[in-house]
Amino acid sequence: MQADFTRLQNFVASVFESIGVPENQAQLAAEVLVSADARGIDSHGVARLAGYVRLFDHGRLNPNPKIKIIHESPSTAVIDGDKGLGLVVAPYAMEIACEKAEKAGTGWIAVRNSNHFGIAGYHAMKALEHQMIGWAMTHAAPLVTPTFSREKLLGTNPVAMAIPALTEPPFVADFASTAVAYGKLEILQRKGLNTPDGWVQDADGNPCNDAFAIKNGGALLPLGGDREHGSHKGYALGAMVDILSGVLSGANFGPWVPPFATAGFMSAGETVGIGTGHFLGAMRIDAFRPADEFRQDMDKWIQRFRSAQAVEGKKVIIPGDPERELEVERKANGIPLLEPVVADLQALANRFNVPFKLA
Amino acid sequence: MQADFTRLQNFVASVFESIGVPENQAQLAAEVLVSADARGIDSHGVARLAGYVRLFDHGRLNPNPKIKIIHESPSTAVIDGDKGLGLVVAPYAMEIACEKAEKAGTGWIAVRNSNHFGIAGYHAMKALEHQMIGWAMTHAAPLVTPTFSREKLLGTNPVAMAIPALTEPPFVADFASTAVAYGKLEILQRKGLNTPDGWVQDADGNPCNDAFAIKNGGALLPLGGDREHGSHKGYALGAMVDILSGVLSGANFGPWVPPFATAGFMSAGETVGIGTGHFLGAMRIDAFRPADEFRQDMDKWIQRFRSAQAVEGKKVIIPGDPERELEVERKANGIPLLEPVVADLQALANRFNVPFKLA
Repeated sequence: MQADFTRLQNFVASVFESIGVPENQAQLAAEVLVSADARGIDSHGVARLAGYVRLFDHGRLNPNPKIKIIHESPSTAVIDGDKGLGLVVAPYAMEIACEKAEKAGTGWIAVRNSNHFGIAGYHAMKALEHQMIGWAMTHAAPLVTPTFSREKLLGTNPVAMAIPALTEPPFVADFASTAVAYGKLEILQRKGLNTPDGWVQDADGNPCNDAFAIKNGGALLPLGGDREHGSHKGYALGAMVDILSGVLSGANFGPWVPPFATAGFMSAGETVGIGTGHFLGAMRIDAFRPADEFRQDMDKWIQRFRSAQAVEGKKVIIPGDPERELEVERKANGIPLLEPVVADLQALANRFNVPFKLA
Repeated sequence: MQADFTRLQNFVASVFESIGVPENQAQLAAEVLVSADARGIDSHGVARLAGYVRLFDHGRLNPNPKIKIIHESPSTAVIDGDKGLGLVVAPYAMEIACEKAEKAGTGWIAVRNSNHFGIAGYHAMKALEHQMIGWAMTHAAPLVTPTFSREKLLGTNPVAMAIPALTEPPFVADFASTAVAYGKLEILQRKGLNTPDGWVQDADGNPCNDAFAIKNGGALLPLGGDREHGSHKGYALGAMVDILSGVLSGANFGPWVPPFATAGFMSAGETVGIGTGHFLGAMRIDAFRPADEFRQDMDKWIQRFRSAQAVEGKKVIIPGDPERELEVERKANGIPLLEPVVADLQALANRFNVPFKLA
């Protein structure tokens, strides 16, 4: 199905309202969630809506949280999300990051007691509205093995950074610290195909090509794949994200990060902190350089990289280019939804008696 | 040759003094440089001493710089290194980062007009002396191709982060944003061996196994290796480091970053900013959480990861473990130096009439 962008967003907001999320927060959560679909990161969009509702069903999601600042300094704060939607908690935290940056030059917010926050890139890009550089990271439930480990101790732990230019569109990096996203395995599973080398390992820690590796006790590999190709670097990066999101905020960390509500992973299990954590930041450009000079130089950076001599038949891309282009296209022409996702959404429409007309 | 740690450090300081570096700065520069050898990152240690002297010979290094704060806010500053040794400029910047963090919670310093600063890890670890989390990044001369590029536009652009624990030694990540360090190619060159797949490409941008690839117009690949294994993520990470170090500071950036003084790469060439840049940061832990709670949780994090079930015959390592262990061993038993490095040092001793007794 090809869903209309605005109808889809309104539908998502209605579902969130149906579980008790206040209207303005439901609108915001829908905007964050559907931005993933618009930008082509379909695994983090409306495909997860039923999961958020399951979190609510199991008492792990507070639809109307009292988000609080627990502690702060001129350039930092820790925020307790009161078990709220990460889709709402993270934008709240990002606003505080930008306020801090306005006064202190930078603002850095560690968040605890939150839930999955959608795509990291959305939150980093909020800083662009203030002409600032934005950072967003989050940890997630363990699917990834450190180098030489058989145990899954880290999530796909993404890092996003958004940097404004002048006439060029912004630089927007948003990437998991793994060789591939879990969503790429799901695509191969549906097609009955094996993975390339360097994506996954089996339950004994041996390299394998099984698209169902995780279900079979295996794991995703850190960026780099194996030691010879730098997996210890991907492991270190994922660890940094985990420590900033989890240990610095007082959330859970490592293997104790609570799972998202997918079938068979409902319990939060043993805890060493409070809920899921994120780490968000904003940097005011003129706390470093006159903003116009910086933005002109970013134009020069972007133009030089985009015009690089490319491998035959390819072109060099600026981080954020493909997602931005897709967003324009999908907002105009609709968002493709897979059958099982449509069925999930239909079930939610039935349950909450919400009108279901997306096309 | 097995060089005594203290003798080697004093020798390096004498050479720096011989080109006009003031005594206390020469001592500091020697400490930073030799820390690379002690920690096993031999490519960034005394093997580069002759290169620093060549920078001086060609007028690209000011031995007695007036390091200045150009602009600042409560949590940020831009520092101009006045063409000084990065080995001296970066510790100066790191001190300011920690002072800012003391008051504002965090401190972030973009540095321009500097030179190569040794290993990033040293600078990040300086924050540990203040019980803070330290960050260090630097860009470098272009050896790396963005995904699908035939042109080298990025350096090996490392990221380092040092995080204190309580009873455990600190977590110290320090890694280039490439699949491998250039030093690994040099080892293969000496042995006459090819590289594994996924390390380098040739001048046309095709995958290759040539240990001399860079000399033959090829390039190092970003962490991830190729697009299928996430090279666009390594590219994005290297780009972030370049923008923070170069564009935010007002230094050069991308392909315009001036080369280190290796044979055949003497000219700084066309410039779009001032010298080489770095980006350094410090975060005061109790600007987020009570420091004792955080450090206890770091102990728990480290112990959990270190005790992970490992692949047969291997163990799971905490970032920083191997370097710390080697540092203890080499400080006690000496630092192995290759013949060509000893010859370089001997030549410097002769030129500057400095006593040369390292063992």
